Amino acid sequence: VSAPDTLPRYRQLADEIAGLIGSGALRPGERLPSVRQTRASRACSAATVFQAYYLLESRGLIRAAERSGYFVAQPPRPTPLPARARPSGEPQAVAVSELVFQLLGTGGHEIRAPFGSAFPSPALFPLDKLRRALTAGSRRMSPAQLTSHLSCGDEELKRQIALRYLRQGLTVDPAEIVLTNGALEGLNLALQLLTRPGDAVLIESPGFYAALQALERLGLRAVELPTDPAEGADLEALETLIERHAPKACWLMTSFQNPLGSLMPPERKRALVALLERHDVVLIEDDVYAELQHEGLAPLPAKAFETRGAVLHCGSFSKSLAPGYRVGWVAAGRHAPALLRAKLSLSLSGSWPAQAALADYLQGGDFDRHLRALRRALAAQQRAMLAAIERHFPDDTRVTRPSGGYFLWVELPEGHDSLALHGAALAEGISLAPGPMFSASGAFRHCLRLNCGQPWTPLLEQALARLGELIRSQRR
Amino acid sequence: VSAPDTLPRYRQLADEIAGLIGSGALRPGERLPSVRQTRASRACSAATVFQAYYLLESRGLIRAAERSGYFVAQPPRPTPLPARARPSGEPQAVAVSELVFQLLGTGGHEIRAPFGSAFPSPALFPLDKLRRALTAGSRRMSPAQLTSHLSCGDEELKRQIALRYLRQGLTVDPAEIVLTNGALEGLNLALQLLTRPGDAVLIESPGFYAALQALERLGLRAVELPTDPAEGADLEALETLIERHAPKACWLMTSFQNPLGSLMPPERKRALVALLERHDVVLIEDDVYAELQHEGLAPLPAKAFETRGAVLHCGSFSKSLAPGYRVGWVAAGRHAPALLRAKLSLSLSGSWPAQAALADYLQGGDFDRHLRALRRALAAQQRAMLAAIERHFPDDTRVTRPSGGYFLWVELPEGHDSLALHGAALAEGISLAPGPMFSASGAFRHCLRLNCGQPWTPLLEQALARLGELIRSQRR
Repeated sequence: VSAPDTLPRYRQLADEIAGLIGSGALRPGERLPSVRQTRASRACSAATVFQAYYLLESRGLIRAAERSGYFVAQPPRPTPLPARARPSGEPQAVAVSELVFQLLGTGGHEIRAPFGSAFPSPALFPLDKLRRALTAGSRRMSPAQLTSHLSCGDEELKRQIALRYLRQGLTVDPAEIVLTNGALEGLNLALQLLTRPGDAVLIESPGFYAALQALERLGLRAVELPTDPAEGADLEALETLIERHAPKACWLMTSFQNPLGSLMPPERKRALVALLERHDVVLIEDDVYAELQHEGLAPLPAKAFETRGAVLHCGSFSKSLAPGYRVGWVAAGRHAPALLRAKLSLSLSGSWPAQAALADYLQGGDFDRHLRALRRALAAQQRAMLAAIERHFPDDTRVTRPSGGYFLWVELPEGHDSLALHGAALAEGISLAPGPMFSASGAFRHCLRLNCGQPWTPLLEQALARLGELIRSQRR
Repeated sequence: VSAPDTLPRYRQLADEIAGLIGSGALRPGERLPSVRQTRASRACSAATVFQAYYLLESRGLIRAAERSGYFVAQPPRPTPLPARARPSGEPQAVAVSELVFQLLGTGGHEIRAPFGSAFPSPALFPLDKLRRALTAGSRRMSPAQLTSHLSCGDEELKRQIALRYLRQGLTVDPAEIVLTNGALEGLNLALQLLTRPGDAVLIESPGFYAALQALERLGLRAVELPTDPAEGADLEALETLIERHAPKACWLMTSFQNPLGSLMPPERKRALVALLERHDVVLIEDDVYAELQHEGLAPLPAKAFETRGAVLHCGSFSKSLAPGYRVGWVAAGRHAPALLRAKLSLSLSGSWPAQAALADYLQGGDFDRHLRALRRALAAQQRAMLAAIERHFPDDTRVTRPSGGYFLWVELPEGHDSLALHGAALAEGISLAPGPMFSASGAFRHCLRLNCGQPWTPLLEQALARLGELIRSQRR
């Protein structure tokens, strides 16, 4: 685990106790060991224990009872989930890109609380080990790989990706894996391969803004699907919309959807694939958060249920292992030869050093250990942010409770304006992602996406409290 | 110089003498030092000297006179240049991609003579030093670069690129440089930014097949420009075609064009830019061979003559320094903000380790030394291949004599079929690039592009001789 090693001792202690509370090993109302006991059992200073307990208190996880020590706090009444959206279902041209780029900018402000970020904190990734893999991997690169064999991509990396599929029970031939510059390039290539300008494409509502931008770039029309904040795309609506609009493709995030965090249950994924196969609509499955479940095993992708090799499953290491390396892939089934050609004519190949580094890292066998630590960290951070939202946001706030990933989707009562909130927060160094970024129709003005991918700190707690004040001030 | 250090002693000696002949220091008819003299002066074995002289003889650079030693050979009568193409000038849909992909494949044959390759030999690149730069560069990467600052690309790399422009006398603000996954992605992004499906785009004839593929992908119509094998695109024809077809963009390789190797003289570049500015047509200048002049200073790009910031100048390190790293850029002038957004929504950013490695390498100051060695090697290899073509190809062969890059364009008399030749040669492990790859109209059936980017060896000499036989056999 790279991250905790670099944290101060009190943070490590606090995170560990938070983990025990989160897992239920320490239950609400139970007394924590005294400062003296902990000091002895951990061989650390009293100051360290006090700091850890203060931090846990500030996170709302424990409470101090005068003269009798510290107790595990009662979990707050869970905030209700946001409502399911009801998009019009009519195909519409997309013109959201300008707004998205404006909102992704920082307007020259220094960001102290990156709640609008699309990435987890870089501190959560094994950057030192990756650096060593970069050196080791580059020794393995043969000169021929850099020129004559360039276009195939690193064979060992494709084999390692196929092995990870195999462990999930999916048989994916390395030859059907097309390496791409991040999943984003794969998604763009897949869309371009399957559509012509003017075609309709099904997407979730709310949905990932980069998907909307891709539709806009390619002149496609968006058909927005109602999407449940817990269980993902509505299949009844899906069938109706397919029959009405004959879309060429369906682009979904089936696990830990961005921005909702929704996770389609396995039976729903199976039904989704059967339905799409019946109507001959290709599924582009954007699954970049696949490995970020907070507990248990990674969910199966919808691709696991296909019978015709028509699902394009897009993966990436950008969110799970190596941000900035820009290594993604598409397991493209029968579309693989055409997709590879599209990739070759767009940008020839991925960057070889990054591919060789990841192949080396995956061979080393450290990935699962890293993922376990990452998942624990993301789960703890989500708990901390949810607790902070309960403390600092108005009572009628609704928020998702995803079982993976690092986004929360917050729904404020109608009338709130997340765009105005964004402007006010940015001026104080707090970023957020306003709801209208996630829709072709300008919906979700009263919603926002918050990133809980950063280790929770008093500074973030303050920033979230300030955001709560800004929200309340919109009511006057 | 990385390459020569790894060559056997006799090859180093031969290359050195070949260099003296090429530069004119040793003139035709002059006697070479005797084997005994050379052995003494070089402190090497007689066998080494003999091997070097045999190699030079096989290259046609020296001849043995019985009992009187070795003499510099008379240069052969130069083969005439190919004729200038006369394309129809009518806009046409492009459907060449399938053919190109077929012809780029090896059909399962092992290639011993990669005359069809698009790359110079990897042996010509400083792979060890790049590997060290990869390690050093990755130490410099800050975690924030991998996430929150990801999209901007490596600032130091952009600064180094701007410095190289500055040394040429061009003022390019690092902020107008958009880093891309190789020049190819930059070219695709530029085309997509400037055009809508159905638009006309001016390209050279013959022209780079990846440009044709990009036009095809984007549904654009090609207007082919007559292009002089020595001096590049014909400006009179250019003006006529602009007036007739109102193209949205003009995509040219102004220096060492692929496949002709033509180099527009500076005054022609100035006139080109003036003409395009007058007609408000954007120039996409594909300049990936910019640094590969065989002698003297790198030619100025057309961008040097612009007055409105409208030229999109596309560069790359793939051909000059680091194949497989996939680091290219566009100096995009006033198009930079829009191009950066297009890049962000297509693939977010380039691969950070490769960018950091090249930034570190360029800071180290070794690039110019490497380029000098690379240019000398490419010049020597071109001389050797030209001499071999004179020896082995029919007398009525025409061939270009580019002053940079590593391609020769061979024109056989009408009636020859480069596609059939390609099939026959491939079966014997010899690749070549048939003429029809380089045209939207299927022209150039009697032409082929040969790669002289490989260090010349007896094996390549044999392969070229065999190619000559295959050409002659087409006459029967």
